[in-house]
Amino acid sequence: MQPAAPAPRAFETRIRVIYGDTDQMGVVYYANYLRYFEAGRTEFFRSCGGTYLEMEKTGFGLPVIEAHCEYKVSAKFDDVVVVRTWVDEIRRASLLFRYAARREGDGTLLAIGHTWHACVAAGGKPARLPPAVVRLLTGESSPRS
Amino acid sequence: MQPAAPAPRAFETRIRVIYGDTDQMGVVYYANYLRYFEAGRTEFFRSCGGTYLEMEKTGFGLPVIEAHCEYKVSAKFDDVVVVRTWVDEIRRASLLFRYAARREGDGTLLAIGHTWHACVAAGGKPARLPPAVVRLLTGESSPRS
Amino acid sequence: MQPAAPAPRAFETRIRVIYGDTDQMGVVYYANYLRYFEAGRTEFFRSCGGTYLEMEKTGFGLPVIEAHCEYKVSAKFDDVVVVRTWVDEIRRASLLFRYAARREGDGTLLAIGHTWHACVAAGGKPARLPPAVVRLLTGESSPRS
Amino acid sequence: MQPAAPAPRAFETRIRVIYGDTDQMGVVYYANYLRYFEAGRTEFFRSCGGTYLEMEKTGFGLPVIEAHCEYKVSAKFDDVVVVRTWVDEIRRASLLFRYAARREGDGTLLAIGHTWHACVAAGGKPARLPPAVVRLLTGESSPRS
Repeated sequence: MQPAAPAPRAFETRIRVIYGDTDQMGVVYYANYLRYFEAGRTEFFRSCGGTYLEMEKTGFGLPVIEAHCEYKVSAKFDDVVVVRTWVDEIRRASLLFRYAARREGDGTLLAIGHTWHACVAAGGKPARLPPAVVRLLTGESSPRS
Repeated sequence: MQPAAPAPRAFETRIRVIYGDTDQMGVVYYANYLRYFEAGRTEFFRSCGGTYLEMEKTGFGLPVIEAHCEYKVSAKFDDVVVVRTWVDEIRRASLLFRYAARREGDGTLLAIGHTWHACVAAGGKPARLPPAVVRLLTGESSPRS
Repeated sequence: MQPAAPAPRAFETRIRVIYGDTDQMGVVYYANYLRYFEAGRTEFFRSCGGTYLEMEKTGFGLPVIEAHCEYKVSAKFDDVVVVRTWVDEIRRASLLFRYAARREGDGTLLAIGHTWHACVAAGGKPARLPPAVVRLLTGESSPRS
Repeated sequence: MQPAAPAPRAFETRIRVIYGDTDQMGVVYYANYLRYFEAGRTEFFRSCGGTYLEMEKTGFGLPVIEAHCEYKVSAKFDDVVVVRTWVDEIRRASLLFRYAARREGDGTLLAIGHTWHACVAAGGKPARLPPAVVRLLTGESSPRS
């Protein structure tokens, strides 16, 4: 019998909205959600027991090749935005992060989005995702036999 | 016989990449393309003979409800990014801008993307796109009979 | 005998450096320290028992009229920057915040700076600092007799 | 007899304010003036016949060691900010840029500021300003005899 699939990992990162994040409509400027998503995935890495920085030091990078965001309700100055981040798909040489941003307190859904990342080796060449990174992000601490 | 459909309007905006747009990979940070797209659509409005600011003064806004970007080749410091912008679809209460960003000089395609905008009236309520805005953006200077 | 003057209040805010804060030199872009300083003073307000947002709702604002930063050592991606913030001077209609940013862990001094703020009432007119704001920021919870 | 000192070079760069530059007060966020100053000095280099990029390729950099800005009148969305930039002082291993930002049209002074830059060689070590850079920025096309 197969063991049950582990529940997908997710991690929540809190970000306090500053003046510099808002625009003249009095809400968070749309591009800044991609900054929040970046904070979310960096903290996701850390929550898995590694860091993005360490992965880079092994010679690999995960540049964004596609970003997408749907805006539901506007976040405002001094709100705390909670970004829930998880890995939704892992392919040979790319992976998909998904994000859901909620307002702390009432839990209002502010935005959802995703980013696709290519794996590149030194020099920017496409590369297979290192098994150590896959294990880190999926929580499979030992290689399959 | 129907008159031929007019060619869709498009407008090209030039943006010089500054240090502040780049990140430690030595390329433009992914969120900044959404800033470039905003510059593109603001200049698109102006090229149509109006401004986004004037539209706002009539009490309407076009907040972004969805943003999407696909990254092809990285732009670098001191590059000039040329953002081609056009309206691809107009619905009753929303519209779709599309963007193609190229590097000036060699014309390399850097990124493509789109933004969906809802039309809102004062107070943020959804509203029908004002006919004057539709005419402005589509270049139809007189109402159809 | 006079009671000893209370030690000046200061508050420390932690900020994790993201990719979007860095530039192609691999360090935090110089303008972003002003963002960190803003985070520092917003959290300073909160540490005093109020919020900048609440003050604004009473009709007052504290726009920056002068900003200054001296850069000592570069912060890098994934560093935690600790911004120590305090009020250094309060005049009739303006006040001075000072900041010292250090790297968490080794305590390296990254940057020091200050911002002068004018007090303005509704409509942007210069105004005397509200006594409640002075008390909040200085920690004098009751008026002097 | 000494020849008259040449008038100091200055260069004016135009920047259109986008939504993403503003904050919820409806004005340009204070940190963004440092971005405008950077655009000003990069274009100043170009106006001298070289580029900052070319200087970097010779192995030198000019990191900011001090930035200062005084805010006079707020710039708003869709304003064109004209940044006048000039070199005010050149020392052995550092130099001073000054900036004056005005609103296009009525010429209103928005902000003034300066940035001090250290000269560094590869690896970030302090270095004497290369004579070629001094000549480029001062417009002295041949060395003094």
